[in-house]
Amino acid sequence: MTKKRGRVTLPSERNFLEETKELMEKWGADAIRDSDGTKLDDDIKDLDAKIYTTYFVARNHNDFIREHMEECQQLFVISDRVTSKGTSLTIDFMNGFYSEQLVPDYNHDPKEWWQVYNRTTGELLATNEWDVDQENHQVIIHKTLPFNVYTVSFLVYKIWDPTQMYNHTTNNWGDSVEHDIPFNVRMPHSNKFMSEYLKQWLIDNPKTDVVRFTTLFYHFTLFFNDLGKEKFVDWFGYGASVSPELILDFEEEYGYRLTAEDFVDEGYYNSSFRIPSQSYLDYVEFLQKYVSKEAKKLVDLVHESGKEAMMFLGDNWIGTEPYGEYFKNIGMDGVVGSVDGGATMRMIADIPHLKYTEGRFLPYFFPDTFYEGNNPVDELIENWVKVRRAMMRNPVDRIGYGGYMSLAYKFPDFIEYVGVITDQFREIYDIVKGTKAHTGLKVAILNSWGKLRTWQTHMVAHALPYKQIYSYIGILEVLSGASVDVEFISFDDVIQNGVATDIDVIINAGDAYTAFSGGDVWKNPELIGKIRQFVYEGGGFVGVGEPSAVEHHGAFFQLSDVLGVDKELSFSLSTDKYFHTPVAEHFITADLGSIDEIKLGEVIDDVYALSEETEIIEYSDGEVHLAANTYGQGRSVYISGLPYSFENTRLLIRSLYYVANKEKEMFTWYSSNPKVEVNAYPEKGKYAIVNNTNELQHTIIYDGEQKEHSIQLEAGEIRWEEI
Amino acid sequence: MTKKRGRVTLPSERNFLEETKELMEKWGADAIRDSDGTKLDDDIKDLDAKIYTTYFVARNHNDFIREHMEECQQLFVISDRVTSKGTSLTIDFMNGFYSEQLVPDYNHDPKEWWQVYNRTTGELLATNEWDVDQENHQVIIHKTLPFNVYTVSFLVYKIWDPTQMYNHTTNNWGDSVEHDIPFNVRMPHSNKFMSEYLKQWLIDNPKTDVVRFTTLFYHFTLFFNDLGKEKFVDWFGYGASVSPELILDFEEEYGYRLTAEDFVDEGYYNSSFRIPSQSYLDYVEFLQKYVSKEAKKLVDLVHESGKEAMMFLGDNWIGTEPYGEYFKNIGMDGVVGSVDGGATMRMIADIPHLKYTEGRFLPYFFPDTFYEGNNPVDELIENWVKVRRAMMRNPVDRIGYGGYMSLAYKFPDFIEYVGVITDQFREIYDIVKGTKAHTGLKVAILNSWGKLRTWQTHMVAHALPYKQIYSYIGILEVLSGASVDVEFISFDDVIQNGVATDIDVIINAGDAYTAFSGGDVWKNPELIGKIRQFVYEGGGFVGVGEPSAVEHHGAFFQLSDVLGVDKELSFSLSTDKYFHTPVAEHFITADLGSIDEIKLGEVIDDVYALSEETEIIEYSDGEVHLAANTYGQGRSVYISGLPYSFENTRLLIRSLYYVANKEKEMFTWYSSNPKVEVNAYPEKGKYAIVNNTNELQHTIIYDGEQKEHSIQLEAGEIRWEEI
Repeated sequence: MTKKRGRVTLPSERNFLEETKELMEKWGADAIRDSDGTKLDDDIKDLDAKIYTTYFVARNHNDFIREHMEECQQLFVISDRVTSKGTSLTIDFMNGFYSEQLVPDYNHDPKEWWQVYNRTTGELLATNEWDVDQENHQVIIHKTLPFNVYTVSFLVYKIWDPTQMYNHTTNNWGDSVEHDIPFNVRMPHSNKFMSEYLKQWLIDNPKTDVVRFTTLFYHFTLFFNDLGKEKFVDWFGYGASVSPELILDFEEEYGYRLTAEDFVDEGYYNSSFRIPSQSYLDYVEFLQKYVSKEAKKLVDLVHESGKEAMMFLGDNWIGTEPYGEYFKNIGMDGVVGSVDGGATMRMIADIPHLKYTEGRFLPYFFPDTFYEGNNPVDELIENWVKVRRAMMRNPVDRIGYGGYMSLAYKFPDFIEYVGVITDQFREIYDIVKGTKAHTGLKVAILNSWGKLRTWQTHMVAHALPYKQIYSYIGILEVLSGASVDVEFISFDDVIQNGVATDIDVIINAGDAYTAFSGGDVWKNPELIGKIRQFVYEGGGFVGVGEPSAVEHHGAFFQLSDVLGVDKELSFSLSTDKYFHTPVAEHFITADLGSIDEIKLGEVIDDVYALSEETEIIEYSDGEVHLAANTYGQGRSVYISGLPYSFENTRLLIRSLYYVANKEKEMFTWYSSNPKVEVNAYPEKGKYAIVNNTNELQHTIIYDGEQKEHSIQLEAGEIRWEEI
Repeated sequence: MTKKRGRVTLPSERNFLEETKELMEKWGADAIRDSDGTKLDDDIKDLDAKIYTTYFVARNHNDFIREHMEECQQLFVISDRVTSKGTSLTIDFMNGFYSEQLVPDYNHDPKEWWQVYNRTTGELLATNEWDVDQENHQVIIHKTLPFNVYTVSFLVYKIWDPTQMYNHTTNNWGDSVEHDIPFNVRMPHSNKFMSEYLKQWLIDNPKTDVVRFTTLFYHFTLFFNDLGKEKFVDWFGYGASVSPELILDFEEEYGYRLTAEDFVDEGYYNSSFRIPSQSYLDYVEFLQKYVSKEAKKLVDLVHESGKEAMMFLGDNWIGTEPYGEYFKNIGMDGVVGSVDGGATMRMIADIPHLKYTEGRFLPYFFPDTFYEGNNPVDELIENWVKVRRAMMRNPVDRIGYGGYMSLAYKFPDFIEYVGVITDQFREIYDIVKGTKAHTGLKVAILNSWGKLRTWQTHMVAHALPYKQIYSYIGILEVLSGASVDVEFISFDDVIQNGVATDIDVIINAGDAYTAFSGGDVWKNPELIGKIRQFVYEGGGFVGVGEPSAVEHHGAFFQLSDVLGVDKELSFSLSTDKYFHTPVAEHFITADLGSIDEIKLGEVIDDVYALSEETEIIEYSDGEVHLAANTYGQGRSVYISGLPYSFENTRLLIRSLYYVANKEKEMFTWYSSNPKVEVNAYPEKGKYAIVNNTNELQHTIIYDGEQKEHSIQLEAGEIRWEEI
């Protein structure tokens, strides 16, 4: 039996020919890539593989940009909050910023572009109330209210690309590699340069098959503090795309001028947890239009040269959001992105309008993982099992790795196990891709961002399990591998169009007043009326954390009537709360062990049941953490938090079928053991039973006719059966 | 040695003469009282003791009120929140109320006095949009927005006094005692009746020395649900004092009309946790003026008859708030109140403008405590030790008990131990009362209520340790027995007059957006400027829970610059937080064991340090729970929560001296062991070393010259020494 080949991309580097051949064979790789910091020799480029070449559009050309430093990329930043102790104040606005990365922009008139705020009163100061001392990087406020807090919002140039800075620092490149200066393609020389350089580059790189853009123009917001350590990171942030020239373009198109405050946003910098203002949403749209228009020019050049264009979903990806309205206009052939679990796998795999998608798997071949004494195989397997769950629903078209191949090569067990993974991936892909896996219902995640941020809710920086998010991230991770269809909808979608008829269940999950819970929008009678009606007429609603939360006219959870629970804010302590007896058993916890062992993540305090009709499922510490309720023909479930685990996967899936009134349907392609899942592909006449653990598992599975079969699976096994 | 006598009030009852004599001797009692449900025989009234007689002004006269049912007391209540499922709606507004206690008022025109709200839009409906079906107690709303929530606020008559109802139910009085119907002394017949009846009663009760008013006119808000169980209780609530007649009086005086919404307050009924509206504050003032004026008439009658007037601080006490501006006008001789710890002891003992105060100690002699198999002595001792701490600062003038004496008499150990307590009380009283105990600093508790609610912050119903309050109630309990002066100030006090120069430390404690934390008032630059300046110039600030919290222009704790900490609302997750290393040791925890053993109550999530200058003292679960900070010449301490315990008593006292920059002064009349306290009375030349536990304690005490003495104290011992 000949080994299957294809769908795998291998990173390589100089002086690595023989090893590359060996690895191509072992992994069945059909493409070879370089990375930031590595190059490929010509003999490697001549192997029987597609050659990906990393291409930087807006950095890595210091010779050019040094001649045009006024075209460096820019961002608005905000100074420290400084309390005035007297009646005037001097603010050292560069305090806390890394001067090797950011320098103040004195080319554009600070009086036109900067802002000084009194953050105690919330008032913007008139420009004649302050002056800038450019020599000392200070703003002098002539007259202040004593003991009020002031800030300066100001424009800076970015003189070191933050991703290169991260790679530079992590790999100790020292003085051997110069600091990449990013430039703004909106500016005349830069715009001309990027096209001309690419044209020549395409001629100079005949062996490149795929131009791997890393990425396009504007980096997500990332800057460093005075010690050179990360100060702020927002993978979704548009703040570092800004420049006076783009703001003026925006003004021409939208009829109003954006200010520093639109970007620094009281110091929160429009984090995706902030409910987006209309002006910020306008800018997001504006920039997507601009970026897609400029990017198309580059992609057209690539296509004219007979090559393919691929984009890394990261680094300078701002404006390219692949679930946005304008991405398709770029004409990109493929997207590659880092995959650390099921949700990020689906985030890549589900992108529309592409020829192919590729997941860059973890771990990255960097010395922080590949060092003597460490066993990277554990991380590899853990990652693979999480990702595989989601692959069973919709796999990426290709997988690959990144970093220094020579480093990983020193770990033979690792190399072998990647071979197992690549084989398994191709087997899954051949059956699953392009066919509709069986799903029992459709769920919509409802928040301020909707479709634009499909599979991207509650992310902060890449894969970091913040205390404030892991209870919500778990929802996406569960859904990424679940036998349900998933859609992301915004509050505006519901307000304007109502709830689409094919939706069975709506999930609203998040902390109060964030963009994910919704905040003030829940005062909108249109929204709340439509959601209530949807449930009342038979729809399902799952609220996690602080769903529909905004303190308004006697309720905190505005859907408390639907949920059967609300949260005590200490205003109604005087009202007796009599309902705290959990039901003896409940459909949604039927597969699980003791209720005390369910881990519902960060506690949401002081949630209580409104009436005896609320089915309390978990009650401890004087609070409800899990409850169900009936509302007309529909149902709801409240869950305090849902970190990812086998138990919580089952809990959420059962909740979805329960609130959708589809309990019976759940037992189609179902496993009694939560550590095992069944995926069916009716068009292909196959189904797969998947052991998501590294241990032997016993289970009863229910087939398409709900017939039971007793099954035993080896550690990590996928068993394919005919329907 | 003859036993000391006096300052003790004994409850008695019919057919209990010999036992009463015996108990008077054992306890040194010099007064005898009846209770709700008990009467005294004449032979008991002839004993050598002051006779207190319980007197009900506005209930206990059903023969009168049955003739004038239109003069029953009233309140505004709010119906269930009802979601309209279509375009009209019928609300059964009496649903969930106890019809034996409350009946709708159809005498006053519902169209004038009731209100129907859309709680989804927040809109008040016009009176032509709804009608009342009096027969079925329904409001019909003719046209509703589908899936919006509606409520009816309506006037009811109260036909059963809630305290009598509680006593009635708790003691199973059944049909033997009729339901007391409370009447409204604002109404003509009632007003005339109350004076005339009292006049005759004073004549008919020559053996009564003290008229113990239980209490005056209006009961705190307390009503019951359809099962006869408590539905709502607010010991501070003015809602049950209202009537159309008083509202019209109010309108005449204040120039505007109060509405149902001013009382039902979105369903929260002006709980003291709600930030009071100006209209509610106006009504509170209005009612105090009215009550004090009417009460004075009764007290004058009592005085004219040669008797004393005493008031029970509870039940119908609304409008008599003893720390208010108008209480002194009543001319009451004494106040008696239930005492369940140090804070309630001080609440009684500190009342100004009285001849004497009296604490009614726990347990109450009711069958819920005095039943076979229970040992009430434990509760007695626990209560006594807590109360004694505060007695050492300022004792009440008298102590006493209540309930069925014959019931407690069956527990001889209990009777004996009360004898121990009464002796100890008299000993303490003789030295402590009227002299200034040594204090090292002055602390002000800052909230919306200020002086009016001295020693009454964060209380809900009597002594119930709600999950949401025990972390704050502990502060008052600590202060009640601490060697510091305590004042209660309001935000308005600070805004209008600044921080008084004699204040060393300000405490702001509470959950965000409550009247105790302050909510929106922290957007007021006057307030925040003055507090910052106070600290900057050397003052101390202690924030507990969510101090100065309101989301505003980039900060949640508006005093985050003073505190050195803020709370993450998920808006600034993208900003790196680098500061989580606790200091190795700190002054405020120096007497305590491991930091891990300190129990800081309910967790306030996601508090983080703003800079490396913040002294983190306790950090766990990714959060700061205890921190200190320097701000100019001043200091602050942040504490997550402070339930009452010996350790937390020490923690708060050390925090106060620390932030006041008076660490050295703390070691005056101080004990190294937190379970022992030292109280000094310089004018009397005495000091007391008090063992607050029931175990032997060793400690080093520091005298007035900060000299150390090694001491051993027996369980519960007070040792008196000469200075």
